[in-house]
Amino acid sequence: MIQDLFVPAFRQPAGSPIRELFPYLGRPGMISFAGGYPSPALFDAQGLAQAAAAAFADPAAALQYGPTEGQAVMKEQLLDLSAQRGVHCDAAQLLVTTGSQQGFDLLVRVLVQPGDAVLVELPAYPAALQALRLAGAVVHGVPMDDQGLQIEPLRDTLAQLAAAGTRPKLLYTVPTFCNPRGTLLPERRRCALVELARSHGFALVEDDPYGELRFTDAVPPTLHALAGQDEDNPVVYLASLSKTVAPALRVGWMVGPAELVRRCAIAKQTSDLCTSPLAQHVAAHYLRSGRYPATVEAARDEYRRRADAMAQGLRAALGDRLDFTPPAGGMFLWARSTVPLDARRLFEAAVAQGVLFVPGAAFFPQPQAQVAMRLSFAAPSIPEIQEGVRRLAQAFALASTPATSEVTA
Amino acid sequence: MIQDLFVPAFRQPAGSPIRELFPYLGRPGMISFAGGYPSPALFDAQGLAQAAAAAFADPAAALQYGPTEGQAVMKEQLLDLSAQRGVHCDAAQLLVTTGSQQGFDLLVRVLVQPGDAVLVELPAYPAALQALRLAGAVVHGVPMDDQGLQIEPLRDTLAQLAAAGTRPKLLYTVPTFCNPRGTLLPERRRCALVELARSHGFALVEDDPYGELRFTDAVPPTLHALAGQDEDNPVVYLASLSKTVAPALRVGWMVGPAELVRRCAIAKQTSDLCTSPLAQHVAAHYLRSGRYPATVEAARDEYRRRADAMAQGLRAALGDRLDFTPPAGGMFLWARSTVPLDARRLFEAAVAQGVLFVPGAAFFPQPQAQVAMRLSFAAPSIPEIQEGVRRLAQAFALASTPATSEVTA
Repeated sequence: MIQDLFVPAFRQPAGSPIRELFPYLGRPGMISFAGGYPSPALFDAQGLAQAAAAAFADPAAALQYGPTEGQAVMKEQLLDLSAQRGVHCDAAQLLVTTGSQQGFDLLVRVLVQPGDAVLVELPAYPAALQALRLAGAVVHGVPMDDQGLQIEPLRDTLAQLAAAGTRPKLLYTVPTFCNPRGTLLPERRRCALVELARSHGFALVEDDPYGELRFTDAVPPTLHALAGQDEDNPVVYLASLSKTVAPALRVGWMVGPAELVRRCAIAKQTSDLCTSPLAQHVAAHYLRSGRYPATVEAARDEYRRRADAMAQGLRAALGDRLDFTPPAGGMFLWARSTVPLDARRLFEAAVAQGVLFVPGAAFFPQPQAQVAMRLSFAAPSIPEIQEGVRRLAQAFALASTPATSEVTA
Repeated sequence: MIQDLFVPAFRQPAGSPIRELFPYLGRPGMISFAGGYPSPALFDAQGLAQAAAAAFADPAAALQYGPTEGQAVMKEQLLDLSAQRGVHCDAAQLLVTTGSQQGFDLLVRVLVQPGDAVLVELPAYPAALQALRLAGAVVHGVPMDDQGLQIEPLRDTLAQLAAAGTRPKLLYTVPTFCNPRGTLLPERRRCALVELARSHGFALVEDDPYGELRFTDAVPPTLHALAGQDEDNPVVYLASLSKTVAPALRVGWMVGPAELVRRCAIAKQTSDLCTSPLAQHVAAHYLRSGRYPATVEAARDEYRRRADAMAQGLRAALGDRLDFTPPAGGMFLWARSTVPLDARRLFEAAVAQGVLFVPGAAFFPQPQAQVAMRLSFAAPSIPEIQEGVRRLAQAFALASTPATSEVTA
């Protein structure tokens, strides 16, 4: 039996709660607020097709293996893009990855062995939690409020760990338009985070796939920028072209200390040899074409409109039964029920009504008392958002009545 | 210091011996027999550009995220291609991977934890050795002869492990046109391997990136085909489009027991979410276009001519100072010096003469007494092969004289 051979972390058949949503996604008529998918209407297909044609003009480069660290033409563009975000580094500090997800996975391989302590803001991106779980990490959650990760509870946890002689390996956070909470971490907290990473000696992992999708100009600098350019910058910056160009390129990147990036490149060689040179050449031609800024600007405008439509719709349909902060960017709105509800019943009622969301439980390693939902406003159109919100309100009504033992429990 | 955070497997800065060759690869005038790179002259750039244009006709599919298991259109083509190799399976047994390398990496994640015993034919593909080293596996090497993996030493090792109460998790082999030995495992040995995998309960990992590059029709069935279609087929079949279509697609696949494939999909979700849907759509359109068989046929013809040129050149220039078996397919010729030589001096002399190979030591976890080289005939043209062989003979002469203490040691 092949099952006898599985290592313990893979004996559970579960996978992630996100995967359990897959069967519903394709249902005809279903409106999905679930996936973190960008809107296909915003793909610059023409610009990317031109970039692909340009890549094929040099087939010996675009079709062959490439260096594990990334194609030189791609790194050049990503160094530029990083610098625009205040992330200044040299080529040896930048690794092209097969999406931002791979960046975190490589970091975990290089930094975490079973039993190691790690810190994660909660609620957190499920695939990050899963990478840590599979690595056997001991996860210490840091609570968030509507501005993001909270510093005081982090201080307390760090003090407890230090008292026990434990040094955490890393802290994972999405400070700018968090997945799933949509929060924007204020500069004061960012500075405190960097300071704590320095004083406690952990790697501060800043996952930033959404930073450019801002609905406001009042966005503080990245953690990496705040930490400065000195040798002991504790921030590892992860980014991606998935949310602003196209997920299907599977192109992301990592910026960090050169020694760490070198180890991640060794892990990457083992993992997939190199990120598709074809995808890298397409992405590099696209970024060089000068079309990227307008593409991002269009995404900002459209996502702002969709976020407003969702927030207004929820407010009108559900009033104070839902607690949420309208997001200032990104793709997600995090909504918590202020009335007692059974999470399973709510989800099932929503599916029955034809609307999908990711249950809040997916973003925590442990069961939670409060019922929450991650609602993505990026992929559905405004009429779909309006109809989806209507269905969600019906699901709330169905899940709330008649009162059952769970509801009052 | 970030270095203090690295897990033990990453504290060594080494990486693989292959990476040490990188600085030499770009030198002007260097002839490389080193990389396992297909010939860029054989890329069907026109066909792939057409496939890319077809993919961009449906941007909502080609540019969005896709299922971790692979795009349906891609799986369909890979099921067909597998069936042509006698590898019959259903869609749940096939996982699209970011190259064959990722297939092995995922398997190692699901099957191997530190201290687990694994079996590997030696000499072996360095990135496979590295994946096992990073996973903390205890590697038991199985020697090869000029027909490939030897069964009797394997039986002995298995008996010793069984006596110690140890069940190995997997055996890694490239039975068809081995990397690096170029060998073709006879059917009798294949059947014995399958039988041993069944009786000892380990996963038999058949890495088959080169199987279609045959210079002869006398190629035995794949291990997977010999093991049959029953539920307890112990073979995990890994394959790739890198050697026959283009490495830059980073598209490979795995066929194995459905339960194992499901676990590998969970590991893959953590690793990179999904293989580039754009690359998958390009590859699927290409395979559907009907151009693939002619592309493979052209590669077979050209690689056969290049292999012949290399074998004849080596015979003429170095005579019985080199021991090798002319390969019946694939991309590699494995040559051992029959005269005492210092491996380091030979390599340095070769670089000085302007020819590059992979030193045999790269393919073993432990130092070896015999001096060997892996010579790839796939990428250089026939005139380059002839000139490269001439330089190699000069390097031999330089490394052989004057006699030094190492040579006679």
